[in-house]
Amino acid sequence: MQDFDFTSLNDVAALASALPGPDEHAARAARARQDSLTKPPGSLGTLEDLAVFMAGWQGVERPRIEQAQALVFAGNHGVCARGVNPFPQEVTAQMVANFNAGGAAINQLCRVAGAELSVVALDLDRPTRDFTAGPAMDEAECLQAMRAGWEAVDLGADVLILGEMGIGNSTVAAALCAALFGGEASDWVGAGTGSDAEGRALKARVVAEGLALHGHLPPLGILAALGGREQAAIAGAVLAARIARVPVILDGFICTASAAPLHAADPAFLSHCLVGHRSAEAGHRRLLEALGKEPVLDFAMRLGEGTGAALALGVLRAALACHDGMATFADAGVSGG
Amino acid sequence: MQDFDFTSLNDVAALASALPGPDEHAARAARARQDSLTKPPGSLGTLEDLAVFMAGWQGVERPRIEQAQALVFAGNHGVCARGVNPFPQEVTAQMVANFNAGGAAINQLCRVAGAELSVVALDLDRPTRDFTAGPAMDEAECLQAMRAGWEAVDLGADVLILGEMGIGNSTVAAALCAALFGGEASDWVGAGTGSDAEGRALKARVVAEGLALHGHLPPLGILAALGGREQAAIAGAVLAARIARVPVILDGFICTASAAPLHAADPAFLSHCLVGHRSAEAGHRRLLEALGKEPVLDFAMRLGEGTGAALALGVLRAALACHDGMATFADAGVSGG
Repeated sequence: MQDFDFTSLNDVAALASALPGPDEHAARAARARQDSLTKPPGSLGTLEDLAVFMAGWQGVERPRIEQAQALVFAGNHGVCARGVNPFPQEVTAQMVANFNAGGAAINQLCRVAGAELSVVALDLDRPTRDFTAGPAMDEAECLQAMRAGWEAVDLGADVLILGEMGIGNSTVAAALCAALFGGEASDWVGAGTGSDAEGRALKARVVAEGLALHGHLPPLGILAALGGREQAAIAGAVLAARIARVPVILDGFICTASAAPLHAADPAFLSHCLVGHRSAEAGHRRLLEALGKEPVLDFAMRLGEGTGAALALGVLRAALACHDGMATFADAGVSGG
Repeated sequence: MQDFDFTSLNDVAALASALPGPDEHAARAARARQDSLTKPPGSLGTLEDLAVFMAGWQGVERPRIEQAQALVFAGNHGVCARGVNPFPQEVTAQMVANFNAGGAAINQLCRVAGAELSVVALDLDRPTRDFTAGPAMDEAECLQAMRAGWEAVDLGADVLILGEMGIGNSTVAAALCAALFGGEASDWVGAGTGSDAEGRALKARVVAEGLALHGHLPPLGILAALGGREQAAIAGAVLAARIARVPVILDGFICTASAAPLHAADPAFLSHCLVGHRSAEAGHRRLLEALGKEPVLDFAMRLGEGTGAALALGVLRAALACHDGMATFADAGVSGG
């Protein structure tokens, strides 16, 4: 695996041309195996597709999950100066402490799903700049945060779960999506941690101001100018996993929006990514349509932290257990296979 | 717990008036606990509702799943003489052998979800009668199969998963639904294990013949006349669990249809039942609407065996892990709770 030695965001974008896809041979072998198992062909629905997806990225007919890594990145955002979040910005650090003490939802869900959780707090005492006054990060800051994400990835993992924490970052995600995919600012703005109608109207105005300043930039320029450190770190982790062929489960709106600049640069950057769930946050449905991704779950959740991705890991484990452990028609002496 | 000492299906239906509901005090305490945990209120969506549901039926603020029972009932159907299934009827026994050898999907999914699986084969060498020629079961046969289901329930279980296997039983389920809830026979008929358009048209004609003969009966009379032994056993297990206040996860179309006669007799019979998933089998969506039940998952599965219910158990475990293990705002020193 190469070091993160990019000196510009253009260098990062240029990677797209050199990315090999999944192993089609392994994926075909996995599909043939599914059709030989003791069940009507196709009757395990999504579970069959998940097994074939994993086979392609792991390059084996029978993929396994022995090592599952969960990474949660945390950052603070200058745009909070605009009052876009009802919670104080200190909550980001308090929640990081809660993650480290094992008291958050993501801790419980990683334990249940068998994922090793690491939390990476990115300069919490140094928020990005308010994107309505100028770029949130310059190119070097964005690259530095991407490197932090890249270097946090365990290249030996069988699957990588990504999540985030950062007071104000649903506004950041809405700004990224509006800049990348168009539409009105209000199309992408939701309640976040609990904004009322007035709060959402303010968020939409703030996003519109950010768009006016930075909406013309190329996709990774948009990540720097409108994103935060945890968004850039997620993008860096997605990149490292893509190169190492580690399948990824993205979480909800904010996590998916963090990877979206890569997709806008080239959809091949996200071909190894599942989306764990459809968030109740308004913009996520639209974002999933823009990415052409069907989420694994839909539980009307809107917590972030990687919680939806961790739940989907449980489904992935179930899919692989069927794929690996079921008898074939021939083995079991069942008629009609 | 009482013995199964009913001498008529009317005696069973009369139970409805004596059924206590969930413990509302425990459910309220669980909801209050959810609102105190370190997350925006409501942000765990379905997971919060599942925890509150379990609290109500277990009667404690912090419900647990230490003992999860999975029961799969198998039966054979006289209506197979009409050619409604492309698989030979021997497959029922072959699949029971596959369950007992650990080779089926349900074995893998119970292992992953931590459920103890028992398979109950009901007189496989003695199919019910063809319901287009007369009642599939008489009252005594139906009661006997219900008793088998009732007695199979582990009354100490924290949750019960139900599933079925029986070549031809998607036709049986369609007939039950059409008789209980109306509509055309074709509204309730689907591909089952793999019927083509011609096969589905035949299934619809067969269902219509059954309706003409038995559609006028009361709900539990419909269960006897159109159902099979595994349908009656599922109904018996649902009843025993209802009385013992053991929460139940129903599986897909056929399993839900097996419990539906109880709902038609009195909706209170199914108030302790979740539905694990929405099957790809055409009639399930309509059936869930008739029952007013929202399924936990939707993976386009159509296998039966309890597979969708076992997957939902994993979600239930995740929900309870968050409910029990998360820190409160006060505990964690997080602002704004």
